[in-house]
Amino acid sequence: MNDLLEKVLAAATDGLDASVNRLADLIRIPSVSTDPAHAADCRRAAEWLAAELAALGFDASVRPTARHPMVVAHAAGPGPHVLFYGHYDVQPADPLELWQTPPFEPTLIARPDGDTWIAARGASDDKGQLLTFIEACRAWKAVTGGLPIRVSMLFEGEEEISSPSLAPFLAEAAEELRADVVLVCDTDMWDRDIPAITTMMRGLVGEEIEITAANRDLHSGIFGNAARNALQVLAEVLASLRAADGSVALSGFYDGVRELPGEVAAQWARLPFDAAGFLGDVGLSVPAGEAGRSVLEQCWARPSFEVHGVWGGFTGEGFKTVIPAKAHAKVSFRLVAGQDPEAVRAAFRAHVRAHLPADCTVRFTPHGGSPATVMPLDGVLLRKALVALGEEWGREAAVAGTGGSIPILNAFRDRLGMDALLVGFGRFDNRVHAPNEKYDLSSFHHGIRSWVRILAAFAG
Amino acid sequence: MNDLLEKVLAAATDGLDASVNRLADLIRIPSVSTDPAHAADCRRAAEWLAAELAALGFDASVRPTARHPMVVAHAAGPGPHVLFYGHYDVQPADPLELWQTPPFEPTLIARPDGDTWIAARGASDDKGQLLTFIEACRAWKAVTGGLPIRVSMLFEGEEEISSPSLAPFLAEAAEELRADVVLVCDTDMWDRDIPAITTMMRGLVGEEIEITAANRDLHSGIFGNAARNALQVLAEVLASLRAADGSVALSGFYDGVRELPGEVAAQWARLPFDAAGFLGDVGLSVPAGEAGRSVLEQCWARPSFEVHGVWGGFTGEGFKTVIPAKAHAKVSFRLVAGQDPEAVRAAFRAHVRAHLPADCTVRFTPHGGSPATVMPLDGVLLRKALVALGEEWGREAAVAGTGGSIPILNAFRDRLGMDALLVGFGRFDNRVHAPNEKYDLSSFHHGIRSWVRILAAFAG
Repeated sequence: MNDLLEKVLAAATDGLDASVNRLADLIRIPSVSTDPAHAADCRRAAEWLAAELAALGFDASVRPTARHPMVVAHAAGPGPHVLFYGHYDVQPADPLELWQTPPFEPTLIARPDGDTWIAARGASDDKGQLLTFIEACRAWKAVTGGLPIRVSMLFEGEEEISSPSLAPFLAEAAEELRADVVLVCDTDMWDRDIPAITTMMRGLVGEEIEITAANRDLHSGIFGNAARNALQVLAEVLASLRAADGSVALSGFYDGVRELPGEVAAQWARLPFDAAGFLGDVGLSVPAGEAGRSVLEQCWARPSFEVHGVWGGFTGEGFKTVIPAKAHAKVSFRLVAGQDPEAVRAAFRAHVRAHLPADCTVRFTPHGGSPATVMPLDGVLLRKALVALGEEWGREAAVAGTGGSIPILNAFRDRLGMDALLVGFGRFDNRVHAPNEKYDLSSFHHGIRSWVRILAAFAG
Repeated sequence: MNDLLEKVLAAATDGLDASVNRLADLIRIPSVSTDPAHAADCRRAAEWLAAELAALGFDASVRPTARHPMVVAHAAGPGPHVLFYGHYDVQPADPLELWQTPPFEPTLIARPDGDTWIAARGASDDKGQLLTFIEACRAWKAVTGGLPIRVSMLFEGEEEISSPSLAPFLAEAAEELRADVVLVCDTDMWDRDIPAITTMMRGLVGEEIEITAANRDLHSGIFGNAARNALQVLAEVLASLRAADGSVALSGFYDGVRELPGEVAAQWARLPFDAAGFLGDVGLSVPAGEAGRSVLEQCWARPSFEVHGVWGGFTGEGFKTVIPAKAHAKVSFRLVAGQDPEAVRAAFRAHVRAHLPADCTVRFTPHGGSPATVMPLDGVLLRKALVALGEEWGREAAVAGTGGSIPILNAFRDRLGMDALLVGFGRFDNRVHAPNEKYDLSSFHHGIRSWVRILAAFAG
């Protein structure tokens, strides 16, 4: 097997220029999903993928949806069975005037550190990343005529517009698409040198609250002191939700929340992460979460409470001594494994009600709820992928988290009962969604080789 | 003296119909100060007053200002010397469709309780009230040919537009206008039956704050927990300013604040005030101020902290998981005697700064500051006026407060060093500034007679 793997890896490296040319072809199709003027481009990108995969021997087809089509492809092989997911749509390129190179004409830019940037919209998100997997399959096919495991692929064209067709499509094509694991290549490495698999994604509970005190706005010259002030009540409610030590002060909130596995905690302590730089870049210096927990742990592995918007009373120019009758806030909780969104929502509502004076009322409006997604560390495929990545990059692969939720994962979990393995080669400075997006040629090259190794490892 | 007083009182009562006719004449001049189209009407109202006073033997004149003129009048007499202040301008009548009678055509409406309403814009605020004093002088002149004390009068036409010319005019005419006390007739009785002198007006310190955390808005999916949230910081600052017992939690805030004089406290406890009804009318039931203090005391005699407006983050439709970089609030403190506005402002700013995490900053914008105004209870003129009112109404006159400041009083204090005596005959249901403003004929009648008695008492 080792000889064979070396041959496939060599084929991947030898084919890199051709792989870059194919990436350039895909980038040149401006498949901006949000813009109806680019609907035909989205269709062209789907057809381009289906044609490439068919040429590689995949049973590939373009499938219509209510908006932009899906691409589905299958290739036989021994178990296990993986479903690779990616998206061919991209964000708009605006504002165009900030681009230093044409957004849909990929430009290779040599960098002082010896790497090369592939500069273009979609170079990283997600055309470069999804092609790493296709080009890995190409190398296997070129050397062996087949694949070491059974592979299906699914590409959508609506990821940048919240994937409205994904969940219904998965439900409809459940039998065809169900596999042992979903592979997703849309995340970052730990840093330039250290590969990573993202195994923890926090969940979210969103709520909007409207507190009502008096039946109308009052004048503080008449009622000031004796009349309840809705904004004061709201401030007290919001302040009561964070303890002085930075923890979330909601009854039962941490029940079921487990400590970071020792292995991961030890790895994070070992791995380079510049917490001061991370906060310093945005003008901050004091971690706001639970005292004694690292910034990484606060952002990836601990639940939180955030206030996203507050409004009420007189907010115009000048001054008005009104006692506002109503006060509003939009808030959310980020959740980790072991927390139930609806239990947190109920605890939040009970907490707010318990903090209200007897003559105030509150109205709640839910804004979504989803649990955290966590890959079990003892999964065989995860372990194999970590080893394969470590071998390609020459550094122990990191088990990483992300502070946000990745909505498509919920669709795979809810519709197909599948866990996802997030292996990505992006870098923090790739400027995804922004002008001058780029993907490093080394990301692309070692990304392809990483998948070559992961496919071999899964087969082993 | 008693015989003489009875004669003057009888003259006031006998002349009531003629007094009402004069009030009607003044009301018919639509002296809306805010509307440039009514500038000539304002001038007409000033000229009407000057002519009436000249006919009564006053040395009366109309004095130009940058906008609407002042009326100044003087009549000789023995000491003390009082300056009566009133305003001839009125609020606009809009919305006209809500008036049941023409706003500038006074209508007498007989009421089931035997009283009569004089319905019109300005009937109460302030044409009816200011004429009570002029008609009292008329009764004295009619019976004795003179006045029992020295009287000056000042009427402005800009009270409803914040009196921009008053302070400069007072400064310019200081020597001419300085007297022993300013008499103001623009306040309410305690209730329909109980006369009152307003002796306490709270001061105000207004502040706007802008708290900045990060150097830009952040995504809670990436930074949530570790990055400081400006709205959370603001909520904690605002919550920290009210203690659980309803008191203001600002260092040194109550230093120098004295307890209500025992005599006043005893009177307030004796007088009818429906605290439950006062709060119930606006949909509240739990007094929000210091525990153990009555609603009246909270509103009139205790300092307070109020939040007038808060804004920050995402406040539109839907939901956005932003960690806002900035949070804003407009707040004020109502002050009582013994509190220095600038000391309170400095304590507030120090308090906010002390509650800020090290990586947050705050910007303050002042919105005015004025100390409380309190008439000493042992003042001779106040004591005499209370007795005179009690005799006219057959009930002990109340020493009242008002929760708001009355800006013109600051002008008299700052420019002329004069205290004010606020004797008014308005009722809580007079709908000043609103459609269907009215003044009770009994307010007008007993108001005139009250001033007749007060002038006598001051002379005694």
